[in-house]
Amino acid sequence: MSFPFDVISGEEYDRQRASYDPLTDALRRLIDVGIHTAVDDDTVQEALRHLDAATELLERQQRTVTSTLRHADTGKPVAWANPAVGLRNAIAPPMVIQHEPDGSCWSEFTLGRAYEGPPGWVHGGICALLLDHILGEVASEGLSLPKFTGTISVKYLRGTHLGPVRAEAFVERSEGFKTYARGYLKDAEGVTVEAEGVFIMPAWARDAG
Amino acid sequence: MSFPFDVISGEEYDRQRASYDPLTDALRRLIDVGIHTAVDDDTVQEALRHLDAATELLERQQRTVTSTLRHADTGKPVAWANPAVGLRNAIAPPMVIQHEPDGSCWSEFTLGRAYEGPPGWVHGGICALLLDHILGEVASEGLSLPKFTGTISVKYLRGTHLGPVRAEAFVERSEGFKTYARGYLKDAEGVTVEAEGVFIMPAWARDAG
Repeated sequence: MSFPFDVISGEEYDRQRASYDPLTDALRRLIDVGIHTAVDDDTVQEALRHLDAATELLERQQRTVTSTLRHADTGKPVAWANPAVGLRNAIAPPMVIQHEPDGSCWSEFTLGRAYEGPPGWVHGGICALLLDHILGEVASEGLSLPKFTGTISVKYLRGTHLGPVRAEAFVERSEGFKTYARGYLKDAEGVTVEAEGVFIMPAWARDAG
Repeated sequence: MSFPFDVISGEEYDRQRASYDPLTDALRRLIDVGIHTAVDDDTVQEALRHLDAATELLERQQRTVTSTLRHADTGKPVAWANPAVGLRNAIAPPMVIQHEPDGSCWSEFTLGRAYEGPPGWVHGGICALLLDHILGEVASEGLSLPKFTGTISVKYLRGTHLGPVRAEAFVERSEGFKTYARGYLKDAEGVTVEAEGVFIMPAWARDAG
């Protein structure tokens, strides 16, 4: 591979997860509660003082990221910051993606009020975000190959209920530097959104071993 | 219109914005800082105590949302919670969408580290989320008509740099209950992503005055 990456040991990965997972979970909860709070301004001000104090603490040391991080034991990318799957990004649900021996991928997770478009339904653009990501994962063999989305088409069959959902993706075929992937989003009542995408290996990566 | 909505007065809208905008901004900052913090576990624990205290305060009173909220003066929907444009959703950048007299829409905003896919670049799925939303806004005349996305196709011309971006959308044509919309995402160097979508008025809304 010709693109740069750093390595994180299994031990350090586990330490960071134990420390930072509760932090990200607390932020996900705050996003949810913040959207719908109806408390008076004095209470908002009191909450703000706590948020500012937390920000000041977390800012004291920040990592700088200039390349992809890989897990030393698995060799797989650790996408901490990713807005779809990042364990450390409170914007991500997160999708935790499972890879099957046949190359296909799936993930089961819950979409709460922070992902709402029309009342009670998932925002269509959130469906597109998540399907774009899982199709990209399946096309790039778990982000281990450099492949970028060329086009993606998303077809909305019906609304997706907020709550537990499942995303799936598989490769339909590959032609030269192009990989064609397809996927679905499902809620408890079945398929709600279909997606198909073309993923392309960039020119700079085509000669790399 | 046959679908239910509540009304918020201009005065109450202004009061809520003055109180809750700083809260949402503080949460956006925390999401950003939380992704990249490298502080030790004692400091994380101290930050967590502040976050839990803020959550407890904000949970004391929560609004329940069962219908679309409209601004009394403008008649326009107030999408507080929306993950693309919601002023009260810390997941949203937010896009603040401008409507031109010719019906077209645009928005200029900044995408920071929370929206990062490959290092330095916006996650492709975030581009899809934002374009899905702005195409939906232009097709539904600012969400004032009930129209749902049928399909959307997103074509990635090149990567989108993190930082200031512009989204644009316009209606190409309407045929019966279908509206065809097109849009672009641009960074400082020009168009990076194109999208086209078909938006459909649902059967229940077709007879409504």
